[in-house]
Amino acid sequence: MSEKVVKIGLIGFGTVGGGVCGLIEKQEELLKQRSGVTFEVVKVAMRDLSKKRDLELDPEKLTTDWQDVVNHSEVEVVVELIGGTTVAFDVVATALKLGKPVVTGNKALLAERGKEIFALSKQYDAPVYFEAAVAGGIPIIKSLKEAFVSNSLVNLAGIINGTCNYILERMTEAGLSYDAALKEAMELGYAEADPTLDINGWDAGHKAILLGAVGYGFLPSHKEVYVTGIESVKLEDIKLADSLGYSIKLVSVVKPSSEGVIEIRTQPSLIPKSHLLAKVDGVFNAVSLSGDAVGNSFFYGRGAGAGPTATAVVADLVDAALGSKAFLPYDESSYSVAPIEQTETAYFIRLDVKDEPGVMAKITSILGDKGISFSGTHSSVDPNAPDAEMKDVSFITHKAPFGKLQDALLALESLDCITAKPTVYRVESFS
Amino acid sequence: MSEKVVKIGLIGFGTVGGGVCGLIEKQEELLKQRSGVTFEVVKVAMRDLSKKRDLELDPEKLTTDWQDVVNHSEVEVVVELIGGTTVAFDVVATALKLGKPVVTGNKALLAERGKEIFALSKQYDAPVYFEAAVAGGIPIIKSLKEAFVSNSLVNLAGIINGTCNYILERMTEAGLSYDAALKEAMELGYAEADPTLDINGWDAGHKAILLGAVGYGFLPSHKEVYVTGIESVKLEDIKLADSLGYSIKLVSVVKPSSEGVIEIRTQPSLIPKSHLLAKVDGVFNAVSLSGDAVGNSFFYGRGAGAGPTATAVVADLVDAALGSKAFLPYDESSYSVAPIEQTETAYFIRLDVKDEPGVMAKITSILGDKGISFSGTHSSVDPNAPDAEMKDVSFITHKAPFGKLQDALLALESLDCITAKPTVYRVESFS
Repeated sequence: MSEKVVKIGLIGFGTVGGGVCGLIEKQEELLKQRSGVTFEVVKVAMRDLSKKRDLELDPEKLTTDWQDVVNHSEVEVVVELIGGTTVAFDVVATALKLGKPVVTGNKALLAERGKEIFALSKQYDAPVYFEAAVAGGIPIIKSLKEAFVSNSLVNLAGIINGTCNYILERMTEAGLSYDAALKEAMELGYAEADPTLDINGWDAGHKAILLGAVGYGFLPSHKEVYVTGIESVKLEDIKLADSLGYSIKLVSVVKPSSEGVIEIRTQPSLIPKSHLLAKVDGVFNAVSLSGDAVGNSFFYGRGAGAGPTATAVVADLVDAALGSKAFLPYDESSYSVAPIEQTETAYFIRLDVKDEPGVMAKITSILGDKGISFSGTHSSVDPNAPDAEMKDVSFITHKAPFGKLQDALLALESLDCITAKPTVYRVESFS
Repeated sequence: MSEKVVKIGLIGFGTVGGGVCGLIEKQEELLKQRSGVTFEVVKVAMRDLSKKRDLELDPEKLTTDWQDVVNHSEVEVVVELIGGTTVAFDVVATALKLGKPVVTGNKALLAERGKEIFALSKQYDAPVYFEAAVAGGIPIIKSLKEAFVSNSLVNLAGIINGTCNYILERMTEAGLSYDAALKEAMELGYAEADPTLDINGWDAGHKAILLGAVGYGFLPSHKEVYVTGIESVKLEDIKLADSLGYSIKLVSVVKPSSEGVIEIRTQPSLIPKSHLLAKVDGVFNAVSLSGDAVGNSFFYGRGAGAGPTATAVVADLVDAALGSKAFLPYDESSYSVAPIEQTETAYFIRLDVKDEPGVMAKITSILGDKGISFSGTHSSVDPNAPDAEMKDVSFITHKAPFGKLQDALLALESLDCITAKPTVYRVESFS
């Protein structure tokens, strides 16, 4: 087999950067055997040269200026691992303009500034590889673009934020409150010091944009996709969902809503407990998808951490070294993002009510007027009230457009007997 | 993007061959957009030209002689879909000697004659792609060789024969006998007219050899791997396993047994019901694996059928067209197959016994002598016997080498109070 040495430069030397250097060092022989490629790290940019690190690098190779790496005459492939959308953009754009392939795990950058980046990639014929940007331990980008190259994507649903999945699981399994579960995740290092992008859903939202891009060939605008986080998920909803046969998971859905219109949304949803997605525990990620020829498919693995993410980065490095085809948008004109009002699912609704005559009649009459139908209701009783007073009422609707549902909720909110803002979750189906 | 037309020749035009032609026709535009490649089928060999087919092909392109296809001056890539290990070998060998890349779904051919084929592949620098040979709807070959290129394989366990999984599931869920479940599978088209290779375990056994090859870089001999089928799985064992928290599945295991020694075995085993593998229903396939950097990973999808298999073949065709690296053994000298006697698991043992004084003492004394320890026993009572007579006794042992277990079973068989050949299943663990 032909063997070659490929010289790489790293921007960012945190957990993942250290993992990448460690992995290519540890597996030098295996990488050479399997791919014929040996990697040599020639320059690494990091914020703080004085910081102690597990892995020792030749001080000659270190710099605090990313330009020293990208512009280094020997650097053939640039690995961007600093995150963010400003400096990281400059890093990637500069590398591409020099015709250097880029490997990145930066979902925010590609989701928010993908149009500019892929335009540069095309113009300068310099590929961008980003397996590490979505569920590092799951080869979902490669599978969509290569293994399922001949398949139209029928639907995709993923659990692609491990922090949220951990928090929701701890609420479900241990009965922790949201705040307690978040605190635990932070103490265990499963959530960042600032977990905002995880819990507000946008980390998963960015990944969903990339899955939409690779699945359909267009670049969804991050201003058009729908994202809701897990901050307002309540323990009582998790328990109620459980009693009805569902788990609540932060799910990202990507699928055609109508001809040329793709639904891309991320939110806590009810998942039937019998579905494999409901069995994804802790910080693991999973993607369930269906292709028109391959049928149903399911991938499961770690989404974050040095090992899984470095695995994805090194796979991309080998692809870059061998000149494998990278993703480029190929069908910008055929697709748009579905307005969220038009997307249809069933819904779980819980209403806090005053126990007075005619409550159910008022609620069902409004829902009927707005065209929201359902079968069966469930009501809880307030244990502190004197006469077993009804506390709330909940039900699962039939499928309806989200716009119609919102109208109905507005009308319900105006009722005197509804004492708080209605709680709503989508109920996902997989048929 | 550079675009090119690649001319292909097909040997075999059954379900899969028809599926491949249909898929590249239907998705011509998508394939061009995603990969830059358009395929043209220039010659197809089939057994019977007069047979009616769903897909109409230009009669000029048809032949009954595979040599017309392989030697055709315009055919750039040869797709072998006839199965078997004799004519198929000639087809593949002839193509490779002409320097033509080969795409095949033939697990028996590669498992039994892989050494010859990969030697030719290397000698003539002509790649062999075989994603379709193992779980068509699951990109496990590509994932092992590319996505996890930097990972040492820590362990792998797969359900890779849909027919057996269907039969065992129907026995479990519907309480069918083995014979009734097999009959049903045949009527539904889930089992071949001659299902021998499915139910005797060798279809999965061949696939396990290929997973071992891609996972460790050597070619395990089919004479050295251990294979047991599902013919002797009894409904009562499934029920007993279920009551103990296990499902019985035909599982193929590939993992290091000791330094340089790889355990490759296929047999009906007990799987903890909490594991994702236990949740694989019907004709689906799944592979659970662990890499030293990526951690635990799980893939699930259809294993057979026109759509899933054609998806794998067309992915390989694109890889062939783009010159992507195919598998070649890279580490023949470092590995050997573990003798089955040395492989260790826990075991489920059920013994039919005569209810007489001292039975348990005799059994436990033999097991103790042979170094097989266990905690807890379970015994059933014969409902037809007059005095609630003990009918059988079963237990789950601690981990022990299979050789030691066989010794113990031989000694047990010689006891008068044991009335039938002991029933034994491995109990797989995933820690």
